Amino acid sequence: MSIVLGPNQYGKAEVRLVRVDRDTPRHHITDLSVTSQLRGDFRATHESGDNAGVIATDTQKNTINAFARDGVGSPETFLLRLARHFLTSPQVTGGRWAAEQYGWERIPPGPPTAPGPDGAAPAVGHDHAFVRGAAERRTALVHADDSGLTVLAGLRDVTVLKSTGSEFSGFPRDRYTTLPEVDDRILATDVTAWWRYTPSFTETAGPAEYDERFAAVRAILLEAFANLHSLALQQTVFAMGKAVLEAYPDIAEIRLSCPNNHHFLVDLEPFGLDNPGEVFFAADRPYGLIEAAVQRSGPAVPEHPVWSTIGGFV
Amino acid sequence: MSIVLGPNQYGKAEVRLVRVDRDTPRHHITDLSVTSQLRGDFRATHESGDNAGVIATDTQKNTINAFARDGVGSPETFLLRLARHFLTSPQVTGGRWAAEQYGWERIPPGPPTAPGPDGAAPAVGHDHAFVRGAAERRTALVHADDSGLTVLAGLRDVTVLKSTGSEFSGFPRDRYTTLPEVDDRILATDVTAWWRYTPSFTETAGPAEYDERFAAVRAILLEAFANLHSLALQQTVFAMGKAVLEAYPDIAEIRLSCPNNHHFLVDLEPFGLDNPGEVFFAADRPYGLIEAAVQRSGPAVPEHPVWSTIGGFV
Amino acid sequence: MSIVLGPNQYGKAEVRLVRVDRDTPRHHITDLSVTSQLRGDFRATHESGDNAGVIATDTQKNTINAFARDGVGSPETFLLRLARHFLTSPQVTGGRWAAEQYGWERIPPGPPTAPGPDGAAPAVGHDHAFVRGAAERRTALVHADDSGLTVLAGLRDVTVLKSTGSEFSGFPRDRYTTLPEVDDRILATDVTAWWRYTPSFTETAGPAEYDERFAAVRAILLEAFANLHSLALQQTVFAMGKAVLEAYPDIAEIRLSCPNNHHFLVDLEPFGLDNPGEVFFAADRPYGLIEAAVQRSGPAVPEHPVWSTIGGFV
Amino acid sequence: MSIVLGPNQYGKAEVRLVRVDRDTPRHHITDLSVTSQLRGDFRATHESGDNAGVIATDTQKNTINAFARDGVGSPETFLLRLARHFLTSPQVTGGRWAAEQYGWERIPPGPPTAPGPDGAAPAVGHDHAFVRGAAERRTALVHADDSGLTVLAGLRDVTVLKSTGSEFSGFPRDRYTTLPEVDDRILATDVTAWWRYTPSFTETAGPAEYDERFAAVRAILLEAFANLHSLALQQTVFAMGKAVLEAYPDIAEIRLSCPNNHHFLVDLEPFGLDNPGEVFFAADRPYGLIEAAVQRSGPAVPEHPVWSTIGGFV
Repeated sequence: MSIVLGPNQYGKAEVRLVRVDRDTPRHHITDLSVTSQLRGDFRATHESGDNAGVIATDTQKNTINAFARDGVGSPETFLLRLARHFLTSPQVTGGRWAAEQYGWERIPPGPPTAPGPDGAAPAVGHDHAFVRGAAERRTALVHADDSGLTVLAGLRDVTVLKSTGSEFSGFPRDRYTTLPEVDDRILATDVTAWWRYTPSFTETAGPAEYDERFAAVRAILLEAFANLHSLALQQTVFAMGKAVLEAYPDIAEIRLSCPNNHHFLVDLEPFGLDNPGEVFFAADRPYGLIEAAVQRSGPAVPEHPVWSTIGGFV
Repeated sequence: MSIVLGPNQYGKAEVRLVRVDRDTPRHHITDLSVTSQLRGDFRATHESGDNAGVIATDTQKNTINAFARDGVGSPETFLLRLARHFLTSPQVTGGRWAAEQYGWERIPPGPPTAPGPDGAAPAVGHDHAFVRGAAERRTALVHADDSGLTVLAGLRDVTVLKSTGSEFSGFPRDRYTTLPEVDDRILATDVTAWWRYTPSFTETAGPAEYDERFAAVRAILLEAFANLHSLALQQTVFAMGKAVLEAYPDIAEIRLSCPNNHHFLVDLEPFGLDNPGEVFFAADRPYGLIEAAVQRSGPAVPEHPVWSTIGGFV
Repeated sequence: MSIVLGPNQYGKAEVRLVRVDRDTPRHHITDLSVTSQLRGDFRATHESGDNAGVIATDTQKNTINAFARDGVGSPETFLLRLARHFLTSPQVTGGRWAAEQYGWERIPPGPPTAPGPDGAAPAVGHDHAFVRGAAERRTALVHADDSGLTVLAGLRDVTVLKSTGSEFSGFPRDRYTTLPEVDDRILATDVTAWWRYTPSFTETAGPAEYDERFAAVRAILLEAFANLHSLALQQTVFAMGKAVLEAYPDIAEIRLSCPNNHHFLVDLEPFGLDNPGEVFFAADRPYGLIEAAVQRSGPAVPEHPVWSTIGGFV
Repeated sequence: MSIVLGPNQYGKAEVRLVRVDRDTPRHHITDLSVTSQLRGDFRATHESGDNAGVIATDTQKNTINAFARDGVGSPETFLLRLARHFLTSPQVTGGRWAAEQYGWERIPPGPPTAPGPDGAAPAVGHDHAFVRGAAERRTALVHADDSGLTVLAGLRDVTVLKSTGSEFSGFPRDRYTTLPEVDDRILATDVTAWWRYTPSFTETAGPAEYDERFAAVRAILLEAFANLHSLALQQTVFAMGKAVLEAYPDIAEIRLSCPNNHHFLVDLEPFGLDNPGEVFFAADRPYGLIEAAVQRSGPAVPEHPVWSTIGGFV
């Protein structure tokens, strides 16, 4: 029995790409961190340092920059372009291309510009000055293997909080249980979600469809979080995923990872004060961690291989 | 010559306080990190471990929580309440109380509520579900010494970017200069600013005045950044500060610390492509760092002692 | 076709546990961040908020603390105890228990103590005062599913650098290749590794065996990094893994994830200076990323399910 | 009354410089983050964008790299070289040059080399392969103003812990006090310290003197932390500073900033267990924060201006 190379991938991570679309005086910016990782027949470099088949990670970075010259479009379509390019090299049989996008908003009170195309309302905000939006990021991933290309879209660190409408009770009590039941608590989490588009969606969708769909899914997730009276964070997480699948048949599956960012009611009784749900301590660690996939029923299907490339949940 | 205790302070840092105002079904949340530091006669604990005068840092934390039971108001007024409380202890002759506030926005599309007081437009967004806004933080600081109480307000990590309207040229060239002159570049920074209110403002201002003033100064800073055609980040920084002082006579001074977040135009020529200001690499380190105070002229005044308590600039 | 719950897990993450062994005046400390995640039949809480089967994450935290009262042993054996405890609950059919350990060293120059047991050399360093060692962490993971318990051990963020003995050339050049070939460069990385013990090892190993094995594997990884003349980081990574498998038949497989922390030679020619491999710029992003599994050959085996629970590589 | 520019400085921050000394096969590496900030007459650039006097921050970076070609020496002497260079420009009247140094250790088990010069013991560890040491950093700062050059040396994030030999009691109890007195607790902190050398030291010291002095002061700080039976963290902090001043007359003053990294004894009574100082929870926030200067007595001297350039304490 000898020692052999198993699964492997390599590439360039976190290429910080800012693309300015300046065809008109009203600029648009796309701010991405892009990662490219290739899989294939790379035994020679591992075993003997023979790099004849190794597309240098520096070359992968250059390719990302060069492709951005033609415009980025949506993160998903940009990654698909990269994937198809690298897959033309015979030694590349698969890969993983990922992006995180940072949001920017126009600085008000920029003067209104002229009405947009088709008589749309005048745009608001400055033409070329921007302020960074929320810390959350939009994410995208393209995975290639023998079965073809798979597209995931997602979001990270969407921090949400409900100041009421959440309770937690009815759980079993054993020797190690001290948590009291509560019928009104703060529920807070940082939502990370990944959803997988069906092949029929990815075959036809262009940048506009990916952008619209992202915005719509984000809105559904927030709305479901806000509106469910929550008996457990698990229930909220499942409801968020279910609402997305109900709205869009061309999303095959969604996975969520949600820490329970505990907010503990401070005991003010020693100071002669009550505390009717008003003063909380926001704890750092430890935190609960709830992770779930929401899927469509049917004949039992094996786990899609894309999920093994996503760290951290399920 | 013997060895003695010099300046000193102690307290509790980063008390993570979340206050929910729930007098009506439309909740409001205030999310703060509060630090309390006391100065005074604390020689005995340093020299011999005699703690008879030491208000425990745990007690300072408890006091922060207990005071929040009555409501926070604005960060500035909350810190003033804390300062006045601790200064009643005879051994406390000064101190430093600071806060960082995290922003939350209501989750749309919550149903509109009834018109507000005075016939104002109906509020929008969910009554008790929130999503975290930008990563930037509002900051406040109260400093006490023999001359009384000083109030600073500020903001941190307001990340802004201009995709044009910035150049940099005319600088001297010595043996170590390689930077080319540019007449069009991306200008990007993370604004940190602190401004000092005059005693006349702080004597009368309540929470509403501090909140309104904060919002107004933030808007002026953004607008000045956006609208100046910049010949140097120094010019932009000075213009931002000057605009604030011009607008508000009761702001005595403002200080800004602004990294120059370099965005380097990627050389696409090796790939047979031009790059007319469209594809940039956002660098992490090193970065420029521009720091300046903007003040009112007059008889030369010594540096206000509050500034030695603010790390990191000028 | 309806919408159903897919794979899911939940628990308490990053319980920061510090255990002091103080049976003698010469204390020992174990500093861990422990995560417990349960899998099983948790459909009711997801679908309807019925928590009758939900072992509260707070209870999981309490259990971790209570079990530490009997001593931690090695991270691996501590996690095994937790796993076996939680698996006694009928609704729990699997899970994932993980730990990161922080290193501490005794503060010198503590007075030497008496000779150790068996006439060993006197211990050095202070009896109960410690200083934190390197930023790297030792890691451990226990995974439970229908096929039983699997134990991984690992390390994170072991930052290493070679100032010579590394080159990179012979890679293909396409339209997007600009990287020059180099025959002497700095090679630097932050090693993350996970290795899987065979069932025969985990059935008999106690804390001492896990501790010794961890130290030995770490030493082999460092030595392999140092001693291989590297033609590619891939070659170094494979050699590191191979050296571990060669040394220990009871390690079934090892996976490594290694960023290429680029150190760029600074061009000093504009200043009239040469730079014979002496002045480098340590870049932050982007970075290369090399990931590989090293395995034993044999009849093709499916990927072990434990790997899908480790984020971030292969 | 008009609006004017106040104190200001600008420069390049966090230049990540790695210097390899390779005169012999036994390499030495110096890993620094260097910041250069200039003060002087820079009104024109602030007021009108006239950059005729602005030494570009890019030029400052280049100068740092070029000067490293001649060797770094100690961080203090490297910063002094930079300071003297920039002060030759007439518009530069002062400045602030700072460095953080990261530690590297040789990877064992490199083969022993031949005996060192003067018959010293053979060196141990690999000739050109290194592993990053503790997360702590050595720091240095040179400050220039009208009164000349001042040199500070320091360290950051030296994390230390005593598992016994610490108590806290005798503090006053008011309405907001709930903390129990304890006669045995864990005491843990991350030491940040800055000490100021006298002009007589800096006039003659070379790199070797700065390096030796740094190592000696670090050792004294650790030893004082370890050996004092602590009645308050304030007492420990003062003792640490005092020990340094007692050992070295040419250190004029030292300042320390030490968080109290709380380790709370976990209450195991609900589980029917005692906890005799063995199981602790390491909390993140809030934390105590103790800051003090230790000085030499004498005629009251005003605060040295260098301290206003150090953020975060006293």
